[in-house]
Amino acid sequence: MFHVGSRSTVDLEEEITPEEDIVKSRLKEIPHNEKLLSLKYESLDYDNSENQLFLEEERRMSHMGFRCLEIRRWVICGLIGFLTGLIACLIDIAVEELAGYKYSAVKQNIEKFTEFGGLSISLILWAALNSAFVMVGAIAVAFFEPIAAGSGIPQIKCYLNGVKIPCVVRLKTLAIKVFGVICSVAGGLAVGKEGPMIHSGAVVAAGVSQGRSTSLKKDFKIFEYFRRDTEKRDFVSAGAAAGVSAAFGAPVGGVLFSLEEGASFWNQMLTWRIFFASMISTFTLNFFLSIYHGKPGELSSPGLINFGRFDSDVSSYIPFESFLFFPYYFPGGMLGALFNVINYWLTIFRIRYIHRPCLQVMEAMLVAAVTATVAFAMIYFSNDCQPLGQDSTEEYPLQLFCADGEYNSMATAFFNTPERSVRSLFHNPPGSYNPLTLGVFTLVYFVLAVWTYGLTVSAGVFIPSLLIGAAWGRLFGILLSTITSSQSIWADPGKYALIGAAAQLGGIVRMTLSLTVIMVEATGNVTYGFPIMLVLMTAKIVGDYFIEGLYDIHIKLQSVPFLHWDAPPTSHWLTAREVMSSPVTCFNRVERVGRIVDVLSNTSTNHNGFPVVPGKICGLILRSQLIVLLKHKVFVERASSRLSQRRLQLKDFRDAYPRFPPIQSIHVSQDERECMMDLNEFMNPTPYTVPQETSLPRVFKLFRALGLRHLVVVDDENRVVGLVTRKDLARYHLGKDGLEELQLAQT
Amino acid sequence: MFHVGSRSTVDLEEEITPEEDIVKSRLKEIPHNEKLLSLKYESLDYDNSENQLFLEEERRMSHMGFRCLEIRRWVICGLIGFLTGLIACLIDIAVEELAGYKYSAVKQNIEKFTEFGGLSISLILWAALNSAFVMVGAIAVAFFEPIAAGSGIPQIKCYLNGVKIPCVVRLKTLAIKVFGVICSVAGGLAVGKEGPMIHSGAVVAAGVSQGRSTSLKKDFKIFEYFRRDTEKRDFVSAGAAAGVSAAFGAPVGGVLFSLEEGASFWNQMLTWRIFFASMISTFTLNFFLSIYHGKPGELSSPGLINFGRFDSDVSSYIPFESFLFFPYYFPGGMLGALFNVINYWLTIFRIRYIHRPCLQVMEAMLVAAVTATVAFAMIYFSNDCQPLGQDSTEEYPLQLFCADGEYNSMATAFFNTPERSVRSLFHNPPGSYNPLTLGVFTLVYFVLAVWTYGLTVSAGVFIPSLLIGAAWGRLFGILLSTITSSQSIWADPGKYALIGAAAQLGGIVRMTLSLTVIMVEATGNVTYGFPIMLVLMTAKIVGDYFIEGLYDIHIKLQSVPFLHWDAPPTSHWLTAREVMSSPVTCFNRVERVGRIVDVLSNTSTNHNGFPVVPGKICGLILRSQLIVLLKHKVFVERASSRLSQRRLQLKDFRDAYPRFPPIQSIHVSQDERECMMDLNEFMNPTPYTVPQETSLPRVFKLFRALGLRHLVVVDDENRVVGLVTRKDLARYHLGKDGLEELQLAQT
Repeated sequence: MFHVGSRSTVDLEEEITPEEDIVKSRLKEIPHNEKLLSLKYESLDYDNSENQLFLEEERRMSHMGFRCLEIRRWVICGLIGFLTGLIACLIDIAVEELAGYKYSAVKQNIEKFTEFGGLSISLILWAALNSAFVMVGAIAVAFFEPIAAGSGIPQIKCYLNGVKIPCVVRLKTLAIKVFGVICSVAGGLAVGKEGPMIHSGAVVAAGVSQGRSTSLKKDFKIFEYFRRDTEKRDFVSAGAAAGVSAAFGAPVGGVLFSLEEGASFWNQMLTWRIFFASMISTFTLNFFLSIYHGKPGELSSPGLINFGRFDSDVSSYIPFESFLFFPYYFPGGMLGALFNVINYWLTIFRIRYIHRPCLQVMEAMLVAAVTATVAFAMIYFSNDCQPLGQDSTEEYPLQLFCADGEYNSMATAFFNTPERSVRSLFHNPPGSYNPLTLGVFTLVYFVLAVWTYGLTVSAGVFIPSLLIGAAWGRLFGILLSTITSSQSIWADPGKYALIGAAAQLGGIVRMTLSLTVIMVEATGNVTYGFPIMLVLMTAKIVGDYFIEGLYDIHIKLQSVPFLHWDAPPTSHWLTAREVMSSPVTCFNRVERVGRIVDVLSNTSTNHNGFPVVPGKICGLILRSQLIVLLKHKVFVERASSRLSQRRLQLKDFRDAYPRFPPIQSIHVSQDERECMMDLNEFMNPTPYTVPQETSLPRVFKLFRALGLRHLVVVDDENRVVGLVTRKDLARYHLGKDGLEELQLAQT
Repeated sequence: MFHVGSRSTVDLEEEITPEEDIVKSRLKEIPHNEKLLSLKYESLDYDNSENQLFLEEERRMSHMGFRCLEIRRWVICGLIGFLTGLIACLIDIAVEELAGYKYSAVKQNIEKFTEFGGLSISLILWAALNSAFVMVGAIAVAFFEPIAAGSGIPQIKCYLNGVKIPCVVRLKTLAIKVFGVICSVAGGLAVGKEGPMIHSGAVVAAGVSQGRSTSLKKDFKIFEYFRRDTEKRDFVSAGAAAGVSAAFGAPVGGVLFSLEEGASFWNQMLTWRIFFASMISTFTLNFFLSIYHGKPGELSSPGLINFGRFDSDVSSYIPFESFLFFPYYFPGGMLGALFNVINYWLTIFRIRYIHRPCLQVMEAMLVAAVTATVAFAMIYFSNDCQPLGQDSTEEYPLQLFCADGEYNSMATAFFNTPERSVRSLFHNPPGSYNPLTLGVFTLVYFVLAVWTYGLTVSAGVFIPSLLIGAAWGRLFGILLSTITSSQSIWADPGKYALIGAAAQLGGIVRMTLSLTVIMVEATGNVTYGFPIMLVLMTAKIVGDYFIEGLYDIHIKLQSVPFLHWDAPPTSHWLTAREVMSSPVTCFNRVERVGRIVDVLSNTSTNHNGFPVVPGKICGLILRSQLIVLLKHKVFVERASSRLSQRRLQLKDFRDAYPRFPPIQSIHVSQDERECMMDLNEFMNPTPYTVPQETSLPRVFKLFRALGLRHLVVVDDENRVVGLVTRKDLARYHLGKDGLEELQLAQT
C-alpha cells in the first residue's frame, strides 16, 4: 500500500521531524478521495537550471572531464547492479532459511500429532509462528517507516513520473523494506518478495549515485556532480531495472519496465547503462545463489522466482492453440478487475478506519493467523492423496492421513513458499492435482491475496497473482483435456497454468510490454511470447473496461498528481490560459530580501518557482535556490565584504540537495530584510515559455517530454501571465462522461 | 550502400522526374566528403501544425472517435506485421529454392568431373551461375532504384532520425529490394538477407498506414487521418521493428531497435503497438515457414536466421568463463574497426570512380565471379576431410577428393548459404573443422565481405559479420581447448563461435542494447546474455577508438544532417544566437500573393518554414501549406466568390501529403499576384520559441525531444531574430580536437 498521506504543506522537502510524525497520524483520518488532487506532493525537476554558475562549470569542463563523468556513471550503474543483486540474494537466503525452519518444525509437529490426535496444537503452533513473523515485520513498517509498506512499485512509478514522494529513496526505508519482506514471506502471508526488490533497487541507486546517505549522516564526497534531480532520476531508473532483473531474472524486462514507467526521453547511452545494471544484478544474484545452492557451475537461479524450464519439446504448443488459449483471455481480465475492485473498497475502508499503527499491526497478525488456519483446514479436509514419486521435488511433503508413500496434494500448494507452489503448478506432471483441490485453492487464495495486499507489511502482489492464475489455468487445462480426451497435445496442463498465471497477473497490474518480456524471460522460452502477449493484451482491455490497474488505483487514492503519457484526447478545447495558475508571484532581478522571505514564508501559496521580471520575463528562480542564497546571505550590500569571502558555487547548491532547509529555519534580521539580493547570476535565464493560446495537448507534450516542473505562460509582449505546473496538467483526466477536472485539496 | 546523392535543391519533396534522373548521375561525380553537411536533405516534421483547421477537427472529434482511431492504429500495426512476415517468408523460400537448385546443379557437375578430371568446367558453371544471379539483381538496383542498394539500415536510421531520404519508403523500392536480395543471396555473394528486411518492413508500414500507394497511383481513401509525418513515423518504427523481428525471430530486439534508432519520445501505447507488429511478424513467418518445411506443429523458424538451440545442459558456461571469453573482446572491436576502415576507403573510391550504373553492375558481377572462384579454389586445395556422420545436417556434402563416407569440411563453410554456414560453425560437434581451414576461411571471407558491402546490390552485412566472427571464434575455441587440454568444459567450440560472432558483428555495426537482445533472442538462451553484453560493449569501446560504426560511416559519407542523442558535451559555449540562421524571411498575417510566390520560387534560399509577423511572432507557416493555399487560390479577394465554394479543409492538405507539388508547377497570373492571402487560419499560432541566449544543448534538447523542424529564436520583445533548423544543429560535432563545425554544401 501507499502510505504517504502525511506531509503538511509547508514541508516541501523530505525532512521529517518527530512533531510532524504525530500530525501525520492525525491527518490520516481525513478520507482520501480519488476525485481530488493533493497539493502536498512536490515535483522533481528534470530541467537543468542553466544559470551562470552552471554554464561556467560546463564551459570549464574539458572533453576529458565529460568522459570521466561518463565512466563514473558506468561505475555507479555497476555498483547499483551488484548491490541490488546482493540484497536480492540476502532476502532469498533469509526467507529460505526461516521458512525452512518454520515448515520443518510444523511438519514434525503435525506428524507427531497425526498419530496421536490433537492436531489443533499443530494449528496453533503454525498460526503463532506465522503471526509472530508478521508482527515483527508489521511493527517495523508501521512504526518506523510506513512508506516501506506494500510493494513500493506505485511509489517508484510516481518517482520516475516526476512526483517527489517523501522518504521514498532513503536508506532507512531500504532497511525496513528488506527486513519487512523477509518477515512477511517467512510469515506465510499470500505475498511475494519480488515487488519490493524494485523499490530496494531504486533506493540503492539513489544512495550510491549521490555518494552519501542522510540516514547515516555520511557524505563520501564523491559523485557530487550527480546531485540533482536530472541525474538522480536516471540512476533510480537503473536501480528499478536492476530490481526487476534480480526479481525475475529478466534484465531486458527490467530495462523495459524502467522505460515504460520512467524515462520520457529515450537516450541510448542511458538505456545501455540501465541494461548494464540489470545484467550485473541478475548475474550477481545468480552467482551467489548458485554457490548457496551448492551448484556454483550451473548458474541456474537468474531470479528470485524461477519458472523452471519449459522445454519446447515437452510442452510445445501448436499454432492454433494460441486461439485455444482464448477462453483464458477473459477470466484474466475479469478476475483481475474483481481483485482490484475488492481491494479498492478494502483500501478505502483501511484509509478510513485502520490508520493507527497498532491497529495496522493487529490486522496484519490477524491475516497471518487466518491464512495459517485456512491453509490448515484446507489441508485437513482435503482427501487428495497423490503417490510420492521417486523424482518428487516436494520440499516438505505432508503425509497426514494419506497412505504410506503418498502425500497430500493440497499441502503442495499451501504448505510451501508461494514461489515453490507456482513452480509445482507449472511443472508437476499431469494428474498431480485433482480439479476440486485446484478450484477450492483458487477461491481461498484469491480471497487471502486480496485481503493481504494493502496490509502494513512490506510485500509484493506478483507471486500471489501468478499463483491464483496458475491454479485456475491448470484447472482449465485439466477440464480441457478431459473434454477433448485427446491425450497427445493437451495432456500437459503446465502450459495452461503458465498462460493462466500471465492472464491473472496482467488483469491485476496491467503492465503490458514489460510484463510480457518479464514473463518470457522468466519462462526462458521465446515461443511462448506470442500467446503470453495476446493474453496480457486481452486481460488489459477487458480489465480496463471495469477498473484501472491495481497500482494506478493506489496512486489515485493518494491523489498524486501523476502525469500519463498524453493529454486526454478530447482536451484540445483547453488552452494554456485556462489551465495555468495565475496570478504569479514574480521577483525583480534585484529584489529586496524582506519580500523574498515574506513570499517564501507564505504558507497559503507555497510556490516553488518564481519568474524574474521587470515587465518581460528574464528568468526563473527556484525556491531551493533562494533558500541557499538566503542561507549564505548573498546580499548586494555585502558584496564589498564578500570580496574577501569566497564566491557562491554550484557546490553550495549541491551540498544542500535534496533536503533544502525550510525557510523557517533561516534567520533573517530586520536589517538584512532591507538588503537587496541580485538574482541575475542564479536564475535560469532561458526558461521554457509558451503563449497563452497554446492548446493543452501541446503544453502537455512540452512539459512531459522535457520533464519540466514549471512552464511559464507569456503574452504577446513576453510578459508573464501564468505558470503551468504538474498539478495544473494532472487536474484534467478522462472520466466516463468525457473530460473531468479534479479538485485540488490540501490533504 | 547509401545512394542518395542526387536531389537538386529545388526538389523539396519526393517527386522525381526523368530529367532529374539524368542530372542525378552527373551530380554523382562530385566527391562526397564527411566534413560537409549536405543542404539537399529536408527534415520530417514531428510537430503538428496546430492551426485553426486542425484544432477544429480535433475539437469536433468525440471520445469515441479517438477510440476508433486507436483501433485503426492497432489494425494497421497488425497488417504491417503480417505483411512483413509474408515478405520475409517469400524471400526465404525463394532463396532456398534458387540456392538449392544452384548447389544441386553445381554439385552434380563437380561429382561428374571429379572422376574424369576437368573441374575447371565446374568452376566456370558455378561462377557463371553466380554472376548471372547477381547481374539480374544489380541491374534492377542500379538502373531502376539505386536507393534499394545495401541493407537499407542507414536509410531507415536517417528516416527515423527525422531526415527525409527521397524514395526511401516507396513501393517500387520495396519490390526492387526484395527482388535484389533474392538475387544476391542466391548469387552466392558474402551477404545476408536480414538487413533488407528492416527496410522492407519500413516500406510496408509507410504504405499500409497511408492507405495508398503513389507508385501504383492507387488511393484506398482509408487511414487519411494518418497522412502526416508524426503518424507516419510511428508506423515506420513499427515496420522496422517487424522487419528485425522477422529477420532474427527477435520481437523484443525489434522493438528496442526501433526505439534505439527512432522514437525520441517514448510512448507506452506506441511501444505496445510496435511490439504487437513485431510479434505478428515473427509469428506469421514462423507459421508459414513451418508449413513450408513440412512441420506445421513445431513453429521452429521464428526468424530468417536461426542460431539453433544452445542447450544450457550441453554447452553451459561457468561464471568465470565470462572472463575467459576475455581474449575475444579485443579482436571483435579491432577486426570490426579494420573492416570499417577498409570499407570506408573502398566506399570513397566507389563514390569517385564507380558511379555509373553499368560500372556498378560489372563490379557486382566481378565480385560474384571472384567469390565463386576463391571458394572453389579453397575447396579444391583444402584437404580437410571429415567423416560423414549419420546425423549430419549437411545439405550439400561435397565428397570431392575425400575418401568414401567423408566430406570436404571447407565446403561446409563455402558451398552453402551463409546462414547454414553460421549454424554449422555454432553446432557442429568438436573436431568438425581443423584450425587451418578456419584460419584461411576467416581471412578469405573477411576480404570478400569487405569488398561486397557497398556494391550496388541489395543485401545486408549481418550474416557475413556473424560468419567471420564465428569462424575465428571457433578457431580460438579450438586453440584454447588444445592449450588447456581440459576436455570437460572447453570441449565445445560452438559457444566460442557464438561469442566470436557477437564480437565481430558488434565491432562492425556497434549497435548495443538492441543487438544484445537480438543475439540473445536468436540464441534462445538467456544465460548467454551476460557474456554477449560484455563482448558487445568491449567491441564498441575498442572499435570506437579507431573509427565509427559501419552505418554511421555511410551516413556521414553522404553528409546527412543526422542528429545524435545529445548535443556535443563541450557545446555549452554556443548559444542560439550563434547557431541560428538569420535573417529570416517572414510573412505578414495577410500577405501579397506575389511576394509569397517570389519567396517560394527563390532557389537560393529555399526555406521551408516562415514565421508570420507584424513585428512580434504570431505564428509559423510551412512551405507545403502555402503551396496548397496557392493551388486552391485561397485569396482574400476571392472570399466573396468563395462563399459558394467549399472552404479549404484539412483533407486538402492531407491529399497533397507527402508530395506537395513544386512551386514552379503552380500557375499564378499577374492579376492574382496582386491579391492578398490571409494566413491566420492556416499558420501554427503557437510555434515553439527560445530566447537568443539559450545554450546549444538546451536548444538541442528541445529540438530533439519534440522532433521539431523549425525552432524560432526570438528576442526580449518576442520579435523574430532567427530560425534554428536541423542543419544548424547537426553542423556541430565533436572531432578529435574538440568541437568542429561542418561546412554546408549543396551536394
